[in-house]
Amino acid sequence: MASAWLLPEHIADVLPSQARRIEELRRELLDMARSYGCELVMPPLLEHLDSLLSGTGHALDLQTFKLVDQLSGRSLGLRADTTPQVARIDAHLLNRAGVTRLCYCGPVLHTRPAGLHATREPLQFGIEIYGHAGLEADLEVQELALDAVQRAGLKHAALDMGDARLVRGVLGDLQLSASQLDALVAAMASKDAGSLRALSADLPAAVQAHLQSLLSLFGGVEVLARAREVLPAHPLITAALDDLQWLAQHLQHSHPDIRIGFDLADLTGYAYYSGVRFALYAEGFSDAVLRGGRYDEVGAVFGRRRPAVGFSLDLKTLEALSPASPLRAAVRAPWGEDAELRAEVRRLREAGETVVCVLPGHEHEGDEFDCDRELVQIDTQWVVRAL
Amino acid sequence: MASAWLLPEHIADVLPSQARRIEELRRELLDMARSYGCELVMPPLLEHLDSLLSGTGHALDLQTFKLVDQLSGRSLGLRADTTPQVARIDAHLLNRAGVTRLCYCGPVLHTRPAGLHATREPLQFGIEIYGHAGLEADLEVQELALDAVQRAGLKHAALDMGDARLVRGVLGDLQLSASQLDALVAAMASKDAGSLRALSADLPAAVQAHLQSLLSLFGGVEVLARAREVLPAHPLITAALDDLQWLAQHLQHSHPDIRIGFDLADLTGYAYYSGVRFALYAEGFSDAVLRGGRYDEVGAVFGRRRPAVGFSLDLKTLEALSPASPLRAAVRAPWGEDAELRAEVRRLREAGETVVCVLPGHEHEGDEFDCDRELVQIDTQWVVRAL
Repeated sequence: MASAWLLPEHIADVLPSQARRIEELRRELLDMARSYGCELVMPPLLEHLDSLLSGTGHALDLQTFKLVDQLSGRSLGLRADTTPQVARIDAHLLNRAGVTRLCYCGPVLHTRPAGLHATREPLQFGIEIYGHAGLEADLEVQELALDAVQRAGLKHAALDMGDARLVRGVLGDLQLSASQLDALVAAMASKDAGSLRALSADLPAAVQAHLQSLLSLFGGVEVLARAREVLPAHPLITAALDDLQWLAQHLQHSHPDIRIGFDLADLTGYAYYSGVRFALYAEGFSDAVLRGGRYDEVGAVFGRRRPAVGFSLDLKTLEALSPASPLRAAVRAPWGEDAELRAEVRRLREAGETVVCVLPGHEHEGDEFDCDRELVQIDTQWVVRAL
Repeated sequence: MASAWLLPEHIADVLPSQARRIEELRRELLDMARSYGCELVMPPLLEHLDSLLSGTGHALDLQTFKLVDQLSGRSLGLRADTTPQVARIDAHLLNRAGVTRLCYCGPVLHTRPAGLHATREPLQFGIEIYGHAGLEADLEVQELALDAVQRAGLKHAALDMGDARLVRGVLGDLQLSASQLDALVAAMASKDAGSLRALSADLPAAVQAHLQSLLSLFGGVEVLARAREVLPAHPLITAALDDLQWLAQHLQHSHPDIRIGFDLADLTGYAYYSGVRFALYAEGFSDAVLRGGRYDEVGAVFGRRRPAVGFSLDLKTLEALSPASPLRAAVRAPWGEDAELRAEVRRLREAGETVVCVLPGHEHEGDEFDCDRELVQIDTQWVVRAL
């Protein structure tokens, strides 16, 4: 059993100092979501595979651990993403007519890490707004996202926006096979102009040119004006550019410190998003800290096609990028049977203090808590004094 | 896909009102543990099977979902209990000389439900104290357990104690096979005097009589005095009875409202516990709400045999038994682009209020939050007024 303590690759224990900070951030984000009127839900870790993967595409299938239910013999999956579960809850369990705001926070598991240093067990926090197709819901979600990274103290946060409708507008009525579309999207995502040229060689010349021009449409707000010049006046494109402009303008007003940028060729989650999508980046992390957008089709497989917009992030990543918070100082107390000592320890704990009782025989050990005070008996009174 | 929203048996979504209360209890218990000096750890959901099941016995093996790691080809298990993981963390990651108090809170998964109405995905909360063999650590753990059920508002809580050393003392130097011991323990656990008689027929007459007398040793504190009369004066038995008496006396002092009882034949977790074990019962639930005790051997398979005592409970069960807490009232606000309206909404949220913005076109929907105030513009000022 020499290796009994070795964990699988990309799986790690979260030790005290990190766990404490994650728990603080967890509370802060859940409280923030609640202040916007989001209700907490807790979908299960395990579901029938066909339910978990309904309409989510091949990528999530590959990321999902599978196992067999001894009770039913059916295939189960460990959730790799909570969003489809929350859509199921909105569609079937709550089934409300009006706007529903939901939030969640819990682990997800991935068969393969998303990157070289990625964990296979992210702690996913997210929010979703159902039932409103207007941009006001997109704006509310983006403001929640910006509030989240600001509360976590992330430095140099930058919001990046795009829209799934732009490529759809460029392709127009062209019927591409799923594999051709996948290949095009992959070439655009990696800004690979050569591959994109080869893959689009049999498409009309105007479409080829528009796809190429999307590749260079990234940067600040000036990108939107350039896009209006070089992209065709397809209604999907006009709507997407108008929406991006409206959102950027409102966000810059409420969050003047955030750098807002556009990357109109970024098609991450292309199959998933139906409208504006966004990502948040911060100093110290090359990938996005948070991703979100509009995915109005998400509930369709559960029989309820209603507008949906949301985001999710990994709290473990957020913690790693967030400045450390100081450990609140504790009180050291002796162990004893004295009723007044025990009552005083209890009173201090109920008042929110951490009181570390030194168990008999351990008086000379250091402790992990930063004890800056001690409980001592002076005359007949137990009092707290500085150490 | 007619059944896409059907969950596996004994697996359920946790909906908003229940999730909110679970989150409240989660925070309350973690804060309580912290006030005793417990540090939070977050072990992973997935581990190598041989690590997860080291020294834990057959029962946990059957309860553990297994799957294969695509990265290594090795067998992984989904944790069915967090205690062995925390012992691994104490032994290998922290590896401290002194007393270490740890706590945790996260889901565990079971292949089969523990009972007719049990969930297969409990939300396990627990604490562990390592490094102190004396009863002071047992007492601290039991006080934490009593505090937990009291804070959750459980009615008619009763503490039940026993000790794994009693049967060991009764059996003395007798060498029983593992299967014979398992059968004896099972007969005692179900208070089946007939089976116990048959199973112990080839043991010395005195041992047979002592095993039978253990069956009737349950009730209040008078049980301890009776046990001293009828059980042999084996050092393990004397030590166990002395310890139980000391703990009961101290607990009755700190928690005068708790009913303390003994069931000296209750051998739940016999293979696991090395000393005093306890369980907490409450009105409305036939099984124990919480179980704990001393298991000094728990870290041995990780190369570090150090004293350990702790307890765990399922927060979903605790929530079901705990009185509902009122939803804090919210403020309803109109949606609008007015900068002062937006600033006021932001200010209220930062002050801890829930502000539900009514998105355009949804003015006549009911909302799930209990909005008792609204934000309205009077003259040029945005003010909160009662609804």
